Amino acid sequence: MRAAVIIGFDKPVEIQEVPVPEPEPFQVLVRIEASGLCHTDIHAAHGDWPVKPSLPFIPGHEGVGVIEKVGSAVTDRAVGERVALPWLGYACGTCEYCVSGRETLCESQQNTGYALNGGHAEHAVAHAAYVVPVPDGVISAEAAPLTCAGVTTYKAVKVSGLRPSERAAIFGIGGLGHLALQYARIFGGRTIAVDVTEDKLQLARDLGAAHTINAAATDPVAEIQALGGADVAIVLAASPRVLEQAHASLRRGGRLVLVSLPKDNAMSLPIFQTVLGGISVIGSIVGTRADLAEVFQLHAEGRTKVIYETRKLEEINRSFDDVLAGTVPARLVFEL
Amino acid sequence: MRAAVIIGFDKPVEIQEVPVPEPEPFQVLVRIEASGLCHTDIHAAHGDWPVKPSLPFIPGHEGVGVIEKVGSAVTDRAVGERVALPWLGYACGTCEYCVSGRETLCESQQNTGYALNGGHAEHAVAHAAYVVPVPDGVISAEAAPLTCAGVTTYKAVKVSGLRPSERAAIFGIGGLGHLALQYARIFGGRTIAVDVTEDKLQLARDLGAAHTINAAATDPVAEIQALGGADVAIVLAASPRVLEQAHASLRRGGRLVLVSLPKDNAMSLPIFQTVLGGISVIGSIVGTRADLAEVFQLHAEGRTKVIYETRKLEEINRSFDDVLAGTVPARLVFEL
Amino acid sequence: MRAAVIIGFDKPVEIQEVPVPEPEPFQVLVRIEASGLCHTDIHAAHGDWPVKPSLPFIPGHEGVGVIEKVGSAVTDRAVGERVALPWLGYACGTCEYCVSGRETLCESQQNTGYALNGGHAEHAVAHAAYVVPVPDGVISAEAAPLTCAGVTTYKAVKVSGLRPSERAAIFGIGGLGHLALQYARIFGGRTIAVDVTEDKLQLARDLGAAHTINAAATDPVAEIQALGGADVAIVLAASPRVLEQAHASLRRGGRLVLVSLPKDNAMSLPIFQTVLGGISVIGSIVGTRADLAEVFQLHAEGRTKVIYETRKLEEINRSFDDVLAGTVPARLVFEL
Amino acid sequence: MRAAVIIGFDKPVEIQEVPVPEPEPFQVLVRIEASGLCHTDIHAAHGDWPVKPSLPFIPGHEGVGVIEKVGSAVTDRAVGERVALPWLGYACGTCEYCVSGRETLCESQQNTGYALNGGHAEHAVAHAAYVVPVPDGVISAEAAPLTCAGVTTYKAVKVSGLRPSERAAIFGIGGLGHLALQYARIFGGRTIAVDVTEDKLQLARDLGAAHTINAAATDPVAEIQALGGADVAIVLAASPRVLEQAHASLRRGGRLVLVSLPKDNAMSLPIFQTVLGGISVIGSIVGTRADLAEVFQLHAEGRTKVIYETRKLEEINRSFDDVLAGTVPARLVFEL
Repeated sequence: MRAAVIIGFDKPVEIQEVPVPEPEPFQVLVRIEASGLCHTDIHAAHGDWPVKPSLPFIPGHEGVGVIEKVGSAVTDRAVGERVALPWLGYACGTCEYCVSGRETLCESQQNTGYALNGGHAEHAVAHAAYVVPVPDGVISAEAAPLTCAGVTTYKAVKVSGLRPSERAAIFGIGGLGHLALQYARIFGGRTIAVDVTEDKLQLARDLGAAHTINAAATDPVAEIQALGGADVAIVLAASPRVLEQAHASLRRGGRLVLVSLPKDNAMSLPIFQTVLGGISVIGSIVGTRADLAEVFQLHAEGRTKVIYETRKLEEINRSFDDVLAGTVPARLVFEL
Repeated sequence: MRAAVIIGFDKPVEIQEVPVPEPEPFQVLVRIEASGLCHTDIHAAHGDWPVKPSLPFIPGHEGVGVIEKVGSAVTDRAVGERVALPWLGYACGTCEYCVSGRETLCESQQNTGYALNGGHAEHAVAHAAYVVPVPDGVISAEAAPLTCAGVTTYKAVKVSGLRPSERAAIFGIGGLGHLALQYARIFGGRTIAVDVTEDKLQLARDLGAAHTINAAATDPVAEIQALGGADVAIVLAASPRVLEQAHASLRRGGRLVLVSLPKDNAMSLPIFQTVLGGISVIGSIVGTRADLAEVFQLHAEGRTKVIYETRKLEEINRSFDDVLAGTVPARLVFEL
Repeated sequence: MRAAVIIGFDKPVEIQEVPVPEPEPFQVLVRIEASGLCHTDIHAAHGDWPVKPSLPFIPGHEGVGVIEKVGSAVTDRAVGERVALPWLGYACGTCEYCVSGRETLCESQQNTGYALNGGHAEHAVAHAAYVVPVPDGVISAEAAPLTCAGVTTYKAVKVSGLRPSERAAIFGIGGLGHLALQYARIFGGRTIAVDVTEDKLQLARDLGAAHTINAAATDPVAEIQALGGADVAIVLAASPRVLEQAHASLRRGGRLVLVSLPKDNAMSLPIFQTVLGGISVIGSIVGTRADLAEVFQLHAEGRTKVIYETRKLEEINRSFDDVLAGTVPARLVFEL
Repeated sequence: MRAAVIIGFDKPVEIQEVPVPEPEPFQVLVRIEASGLCHTDIHAAHGDWPVKPSLPFIPGHEGVGVIEKVGSAVTDRAVGERVALPWLGYACGTCEYCVSGRETLCESQQNTGYALNGGHAEHAVAHAAYVVPVPDGVISAEAAPLTCAGVTTYKAVKVSGLRPSERAAIFGIGGLGHLALQYARIFGGRTIAVDVTEDKLQLARDLGAAHTINAAATDPVAEIQALGGADVAIVLAASPRVLEQAHASLRRGGRLVLVSLPKDNAMSLPIFQTVLGGISVIGSIVGTRADLAEVFQLHAEGRTKVIYETRKLEEINRSFDDVLAGTVPARLVFEL
């Protein structure tokens, strides 16, 4: 099978012909149809994070395809089913986090496209219990970005506690942000989209944003405070400075949700304002299988729209460049 | 009446003879019996914070005494009742925060001993709706510290969501911390007390701490992580560095509650750990009248112990010095 | 002024000319423009409930109009403002319920159109703190039904904990139900409307119901269970039998919200199914001032539609009859 | 091995010599040391419930013992570990309930001592993922009642949302109730114990109940309302009448938790009081593995006390009789 393989953290991705993997007893083999490109793939490929993947490996944690073979012990998935292979490729299922509905905090988790070979290939194996069925009527190319960008922002809105009549400010209207905006609306919020380019703000308006703010042209903190302040701020722009702006945009009782992982790891948190304003800062990491099933269901009902562009797997190195340059539409998806 | 009056932010407190104030229609006049000294009094007296009190004023927001006179429109309080005059001296009662149970976030609030004359005097007037009855069996000298130190830490534990079998680390076992520790136990938590002096840690053990850590002698982060990490960390030591240690002491899913207002306003928040760990950082500001009634009730049932030392009001300047030097027992209380 | 006056529990409503009331210091005098008719008005007029109103009295707790005069102590409302006078006409503001965001449970509350004269008159006085401003762009005739039918169902959805991707079944698509349906959608739910007449079901479809069930023609329990069961059921049809159907329609983890007050006070609750299914049954009573402000805000944003028919106050007796006969559109509103 | 076997729903339990079962790949074989007797065992043996167990079977879902053998695929449990075998013997691990922390609602669950052979035998096999380790220092005879009576009441208190300074009324101080009482105290509640025998009430006082009420001698509703009403009521007495009393004992905002399964399945729920009082009625079914681990941890810390009497397995028929006659101490435990 063809696969995008990382052979070194300072080397280009190689498209290689590698053997189709064999599923273990509790795994399934999936014929990948679409595989979304996430910024995390680039961090993985470059070894940017403290715990690096073992080389060589195949990145991708937004793979979607059809089950071709099931392991000997698999009972709840069947050949022919279409499934998604998300970041949470495996969790222990028995620790306090797994049992209490917080499997994304499992200390024994294995991540797809990182510790486990991922979706940027014609085939992938995955733990049967951790793949998520894709409903009919959701096409694979759209299911792919939902598998990470979708569920991550959906969960961020969920943990924010956003409710109808509250204002939600979304900072950064890209691959994640354009979905965060839609989920904030689905939860009943009034949305404020903040970005630095006009086409992203136009996209936000098309997706129903009540307000848009060009942070390159005006001070978003002042603008949002003039609207009464945000109850919830969700930051997809990976920059401590934007996080600090988002914090300053909150009204009393507001919640700032951290999702993105900037290179520069520290944000400066103002203690006085946090205490007097009764503000919460909440870290949120992807979502569970149940969250992803909800994300797919909402899309099947026609309640979300995925903005993406398809590419060939062979274009992966150029695609990395384009993502880093910020010149892509909301999401790139490899068709396989 | 005798009162401790702040006449200038760089001047000593003066003990003056001033007229007994007259209650307005919705106010009560209280004969103060005990008035606790909070670090905030010193910040108020020194004009440390952005919005300064108008001079001259009488500090104190832990005053407790007996109602001597009620305003013409007061119906729910009566002469002879013993009440406490907390930091939240007045709120509008009609804004979204007041109506939704978050009156301590009211933008129109007036604070006792800051915008309103406070309890460090023989008499004080207060809005009848915002004084809180003190149950029989709770002596005034103990009710005083509960009125701020008590309710503030009780609320901090409440908003942390601490529940039985979780571990709570309390950083700083002084006027607030020795109460935080007890409330964490009342909520069912297993407690870890962190301080830098042995007598405070001995106090913590006497109050039932399951673990004590001398942060001057050992690394509290390593110690707490060796215990499995804290589910909740509450920081009463007014220092960004301690806040950062507290954050690093958390396990996945942990909550850090900010209560104290350090001079140095910024803490450095590690984004990667916050996101991957699903950690929340929660600002908490004092508590409502209902929270304070609960605090008094718990004390009346014998479930808390207040550590304090009584002084004369004339000793206020020396008392400020002692608080700043950190040489006081948990709390100082003026008897009047 | 003209007013609809109840002079006896077994007598018709009389339209009388009575003196315009004078506001007390903390009250406002409102020139009523529109006043919605709620089934509760009929219960009040007939003395159906255990604690009866004192005769004579003016019913109506959906009055909307313009402030003409403010009492001497009113500071936060002004002549010329348009406000609504809801069921919660007064609460103490200091009890545990009021302070913790649950003022509708206040034991000292006084209810408009019941203990206090209500909105079915050309003028009404009301406690300034408990009237709720109506935003520009919400016409009075639509604000009226929102003032009780709206806020009551909005709160019911709120306490149900309904969230996106959950299924909400609304039983009874009348004055309350047609709004409940819309709020369930605003909270992100997939809605199932249940009624016994086709025109109500057509209304539900027009308002966006995903499924409609005619309970006169088919078994709603079987239909809803075939869809997977309801996560939330909200019952506006005042009948124990419908409540029991609604309970049986829930899936595991489901919540049944009780809102309406049937004459026959007892429903039979199946213990086995409640325990094994982890089901909750939740009583919900109107909503707070903050809830009503949210309801108005949502309407001002164009997110809800109020179905109603206007009448003259003189038609009140016939209107009572029509409500009891069930031959009215969703809501009747008196124009004054 | 010796085992208590149910051979017919209308026949006595037989003590038989049966083969030691062999663990499947994901199972463990446990040498049972202690096995608690729950009323549910009697319902199972008599075929009292709609879905009956297949005959013959071995009852018992409070078995505790040492792992003697692990299946070929077991990695997270080891020979020599001491574990408990609770009611939730298996759940699918992938449905919405399992993934969201509500595995006790899993529609595919299998229950120990019912669909799966249980603990009233010298050996039992169990799914490795669903046994819960027993900490050192918790003796097996005490771990047994905690495995169902403990976790069930712990969970009931958890879902009640009981918090410090609230009043919790526990109806029925037997095998479950004496533990419910202790958990209510651990969550910080003020406890009211209601029973009909003086020795149970004495036990409640010994365990720290703030109030005790003999419902045979006085009206518990009037007594509890005189105390201000209960915030939480937990009913372990399997009778609709007691449930109705418990409901009537609540104050506004109160929560009634249903745990026990009476033969007579229906309670009469007063709609008016439920709505006006903002009351919730919550069904709660056992607890998760994580809940049970917390229960064991609390016991290991010395925070709970288990009242029980040990018997030989041969005494099972007499023990059934004693439980039905209500002449046992809180719990009977078979030692094996």
